[in-house]
Amino acid sequence: MVIVLQKGVTDEQIEEVSARLRQAGLGVHLSQGHYRTIIGAIGDEKKVREMGLEALSYVEKVLPITKPFKLVSREFQEEDSTFTVGDCTIGGRQLVVMAGPCAVESEEQLLEAAYGVKAAGAQILRGGAFKPRTSPYSFQGLEEKGLKLLARVREKTGLPVVTEVMDQHTVGLVAEYADILQVGARNMQNFYLLRELGRLDKPILLKRGMSATVEEWLMAAEYIVSGGNHKVILCERGIRTFETYTRNTLDLSAVPVLKHLTHLPVIVDPSHGTGNWRWVPAMSRAAVAAGADGVMVEVHPCPEKALCDGAQSLTVEKFAEMCRQLAAVAGVCGRMLPQVTA
Amino acid sequence: MVIVLQKGVTDEQIEEVSARLRQAGLGVHLSQGHYRTIIGAIGDEKKVREMGLEALSYVEKVLPITKPFKLVSREFQEEDSTFTVGDCTIGGRQLVVMAGPCAVESEEQLLEAAYGVKAAGAQILRGGAFKPRTSPYSFQGLEEKGLKLLARVREKTGLPVVTEVMDQHTVGLVAEYADILQVGARNMQNFYLLRELGRLDKPILLKRGMSATVEEWLMAAEYIVSGGNHKVILCERGIRTFETYTRNTLDLSAVPVLKHLTHLPVIVDPSHGTGNWRWVPAMSRAAVAAGADGVMVEVHPCPEKALCDGAQSLTVEKFAEMCRQLAAVAGVCGRMLPQVTA
Amino acid sequence: MVIVLQKGVTDEQIEEVSARLRQAGLGVHLSQGHYRTIIGAIGDEKKVREMGLEALSYVEKVLPITKPFKLVSREFQEEDSTFTVGDCTIGGRQLVVMAGPCAVESEEQLLEAAYGVKAAGAQILRGGAFKPRTSPYSFQGLEEKGLKLLARVREKTGLPVVTEVMDQHTVGLVAEYADILQVGARNMQNFYLLRELGRLDKPILLKRGMSATVEEWLMAAEYIVSGGNHKVILCERGIRTFETYTRNTLDLSAVPVLKHLTHLPVIVDPSHGTGNWRWVPAMSRAAVAAGADGVMVEVHPCPEKALCDGAQSLTVEKFAEMCRQLAAVAGVCGRMLPQVTA
Amino acid sequence: MVIVLQKGVTDEQIEEVSARLRQAGLGVHLSQGHYRTIIGAIGDEKKVREMGLEALSYVEKVLPITKPFKLVSREFQEEDSTFTVGDCTIGGRQLVVMAGPCAVESEEQLLEAAYGVKAAGAQILRGGAFKPRTSPYSFQGLEEKGLKLLARVREKTGLPVVTEVMDQHTVGLVAEYADILQVGARNMQNFYLLRELGRLDKPILLKRGMSATVEEWLMAAEYIVSGGNHKVILCERGIRTFETYTRNTLDLSAVPVLKHLTHLPVIVDPSHGTGNWRWVPAMSRAAVAAGADGVMVEVHPCPEKALCDGAQSLTVEKFAEMCRQLAAVAGVCGRMLPQVTA
Repeated sequence: MVIVLQKGVTDEQIEEVSARLRQAGLGVHLSQGHYRTIIGAIGDEKKVREMGLEALSYVEKVLPITKPFKLVSREFQEEDSTFTVGDCTIGGRQLVVMAGPCAVESEEQLLEAAYGVKAAGAQILRGGAFKPRTSPYSFQGLEEKGLKLLARVREKTGLPVVTEVMDQHTVGLVAEYADILQVGARNMQNFYLLRELGRLDKPILLKRGMSATVEEWLMAAEYIVSGGNHKVILCERGIRTFETYTRNTLDLSAVPVLKHLTHLPVIVDPSHGTGNWRWVPAMSRAAVAAGADGVMVEVHPCPEKALCDGAQSLTVEKFAEMCRQLAAVAGVCGRMLPQVTA
Repeated sequence: MVIVLQKGVTDEQIEEVSARLRQAGLGVHLSQGHYRTIIGAIGDEKKVREMGLEALSYVEKVLPITKPFKLVSREFQEEDSTFTVGDCTIGGRQLVVMAGPCAVESEEQLLEAAYGVKAAGAQILRGGAFKPRTSPYSFQGLEEKGLKLLARVREKTGLPVVTEVMDQHTVGLVAEYADILQVGARNMQNFYLLRELGRLDKPILLKRGMSATVEEWLMAAEYIVSGGNHKVILCERGIRTFETYTRNTLDLSAVPVLKHLTHLPVIVDPSHGTGNWRWVPAMSRAAVAAGADGVMVEVHPCPEKALCDGAQSLTVEKFAEMCRQLAAVAGVCGRMLPQVTA
Repeated sequence: MVIVLQKGVTDEQIEEVSARLRQAGLGVHLSQGHYRTIIGAIGDEKKVREMGLEALSYVEKVLPITKPFKLVSREFQEEDSTFTVGDCTIGGRQLVVMAGPCAVESEEQLLEAAYGVKAAGAQILRGGAFKPRTSPYSFQGLEEKGLKLLARVREKTGLPVVTEVMDQHTVGLVAEYADILQVGARNMQNFYLLRELGRLDKPILLKRGMSATVEEWLMAAEYIVSGGNHKVILCERGIRTFETYTRNTLDLSAVPVLKHLTHLPVIVDPSHGTGNWRWVPAMSRAAVAAGADGVMVEVHPCPEKALCDGAQSLTVEKFAEMCRQLAAVAGVCGRMLPQVTA
Repeated sequence: MVIVLQKGVTDEQIEEVSARLRQAGLGVHLSQGHYRTIIGAIGDEKKVREMGLEALSYVEKVLPITKPFKLVSREFQEEDSTFTVGDCTIGGRQLVVMAGPCAVESEEQLLEAAYGVKAAGAQILRGGAFKPRTSPYSFQGLEEKGLKLLARVREKTGLPVVTEVMDQHTVGLVAEYADILQVGARNMQNFYLLRELGRLDKPILLKRGMSATVEEWLMAAEYIVSGGNHKVILCERGIRTFETYTRNTLDLSAVPVLKHLTHLPVIVDPSHGTGNWRWVPAMSRAAVAAGADGVMVEVHPCPEKALCDGAQSLTVEKFAEMCRQLAAVAGVCGRMLPQVTA
């Protein structure tokens, strides 16, 4: 940490800060410039973060030097993390495509979607049983019945399933049925849920909060990893800006930034990221070209009859066409999508 | 709802949409302009919202006409809602000042803060026992022990307490001790928590999510009220923007907007809203002048030793000075702060 | 400046950076922490800003310690700047109220508005002759004819006028007629215009850009002041966020922040800041309570017939009511609005 | 337009609005729903936009149905616009790569950059002679001398040049030397400049404003096209959000959205969009995969000695490697980059 003091700070005030740092076991490095006196605190930044030095009227600002996340950082582990789910390896050379309906509605709907996306090249089936909805009057999901349908469809199609868990107390229930547990954007900082997921031994797909910085997102991942579960997949799904033509602004630059900062796999959800099926194929191709380890896409047998988010769902046909494009882009970016002929 | 169709739409397509609306029991009102054909759907907009018409390639957009919230709206209830907590009425002519430390740290700290803020004019004591922290390595609160300290300090000082609940399963526990239960910004859309709070008969202080629109915030309140608990207090605490001199951007225009849209009381938290004790008194005065029903402010006996958010905490002395200013502003805005001599 | 080097940096690389700093005449202060090596550059930060050290692959980040603005800073001049226009002093104890129509439309309209706002307590008349419009098909202002009308109405009413200048080459023309020249949000970083205004000896009202940080805004002011014209008035007019109930988000916390950072007067425009006449009185009161030196408000004799921005214009009656409220709030905040009886 | 009236509106008020619409030559279509009365205005929406109906207290909101831009829309012209500059066609099957230093510094620097980027595959040379700088104390460009250097280097290398024009009165000067005139983000709504460019017969590269919506951006293009110059190239360069790891948030979803809304070519500038050379190759590939017609990239022979924006400049070697990647991605996306072997 670097502590910047106000102009005109006295020697007593400098000593006051220095004494506090030394008490906390930190080294003190004083630097007197022409315009400002600054103090470098040498040692564990966490201690300085918690000292509340900004509360002192003669402290102008406290600048962090190191990053607050550790276990998830590239500095801690240089090589990419990879996790295996069924036959599929996430984070390796092979691109991962997760697809399926926003919400599980019925066995017929889910089965039709699952067969369709599998034939098109998806390796993992997505589908929501618990649905976080902005309105209390909207369809809230089939809950446990939905989980059972997911399991049944996995048996028939062989596709592992990813589904959302909304609450620490249903983690056990969802983990019984799901191969990957998804944390939604609204729950990215539900710390009780994150801690509970830290005790599991299943991959967690952690969506970025709607206005979360990359650093906060990695800190949320750190919660899970520091709890003992290192299998975290980060999923970019758009952030909130002033633009209204798209539901959110898909932040694809987060992909190379994350690849630099962390060893965890990164996937992209262009369906929620844009909110409109029209832009999904282009943004999926872009995600792969930016270096994402995979995409997660909403596909519905009949989008205009979907109980949830039909406007952003692809038909099976459009999804198949998109997978062919992804395979081609993957091929020239050092990745592959083996089930699909470009 | 108004459904705007793409240029060049066919009669069959117009009929397809109309038939669907009629099937759902809605009236259909066709309007053919020079540039676009639009269909007005007459009846319950909720039904149209769930039809997913945007998934049709010939539908350009679907425009809502009415607001999605009901029970919390001014149209549903014209007069202001007021709730009584101890001797204090929230939402009436009297301004409500809630103050206290970010986190409960010890009995001494809490008691000193409580006596201090009471003497200065606060009517309600705030203090966190469960702390949502960005980092898994930060102090996470005293939890149940903290709740007990709050109750003990309430007994000694007579101040009702407001404290955060982070999870549906601790609602019962927190409700045992707290007079007002606070939902933090990160939990504004924790729908399980909201539903659980809908079953309580205690006021809920619902903070705005960090990037929540006013509409989403009111929908979160609607979750609680539609569950049976109509005692919701809205708390503006800053939204996320590109500005970095303040931690968040306190959106005071939300105050008159909410007063127009809803009958629920609105208070403002300038401590989290700005992240810096220097700006708290000015923004508290502004909040009252904008028509807020009260403020919630962080006060610590010794901010630079706070375990949490010291940078945004006022000392007791600065808080007392601020209360005198608030009483004066309240006086000229048709409100009052009776315990304080301006 | 503090230069943070990547983990694993070599001695040669440290020396390479140090040598460059020394070459530029800066002192070098090396600090080797447990996790990072940092270099403090002692002397003029401007030189470091221009060295492009972030381009070196082993430089992680470059952190500024001092602020980039000088002449406009409180450190450069401690006491508040005040400028006199007619009988009115801007930046002193007396609150300044600027009011009038968005656009000058005709002599009748302007005169009616001017007499109305003067009677209500306004000291300065606003009105646009050159109008920056999003659409090429919208009314673009009366241009020079509008300036002449402003001058004529000033003669009749005695009110000094503030009006927008959109271009460096019309600065001379506008300065012939206007008492204060306004720079609109879209031109805040029109550096040619700013430089030209730096050569004038008339006050400049500099609106904040729609997504400008406080620092960029002060740098824009620095352009004018460093050119020789120290009479700059800052005008907050809302920033862009995701919220849609208001046209912009009025950032009132910018008021105390600016009062801390700069000696320049600060006024607030709640008409553009909210885009809706309904929220203007509340936000004007809040601006004064937050410490603003004045407000600038759109008033039209008949808002629903305005050629521009009628939706955010107050009628003369509503404006008069608002001025009475402002006088009351000013009175308890150590300011005054002498023409108005609260 | 659809005009939504407040609940409880009277027949007189409905008639008042209707009469106004009829007076303006618009058709009136009344629709009385259960919750709201709405009026459809049939005819030119521009007229309704300018009526200021929102100023009426009984008007709740006015919803646009059609888009405000015309000449630049796909509805006006279905096929893609293409413009030829030298041997290069912009907007066609061939991908356009514009590259060069942020600022023209000297003939040696520019020549070295130009030969480097040409060899790597760039077809157009970029370089700033007039530099908009946040600080008045920063290097402001070589101005006319810089334009002459650009022309000399064009002669030697055969590369057409794109350079920024900052002001309506230098349009003639810049047009003498440049093949494409660039409008910077800060000038996107400098309407005088746009109108002047509308009189030229040279392509204009119009950068998106830092917080401009897609609609405002297209309206800025409409200014140029409605003035008579239909050769406008749109350039996405990042928008402002809360994220701080990148300088801006590159909004790649704007690419497919624009391709849907307009016939104009769209290129992407990942150098300004991210502010860091590390993320430029990934985001360039993503831009091409998203369907952009080209990219514009900063390349400097020695980035760490650049007078401007060194942190975001690629070396010639890294740029060459990037061009090979782009050629490969282009190849699988139905585009090509003929000078480069993937």
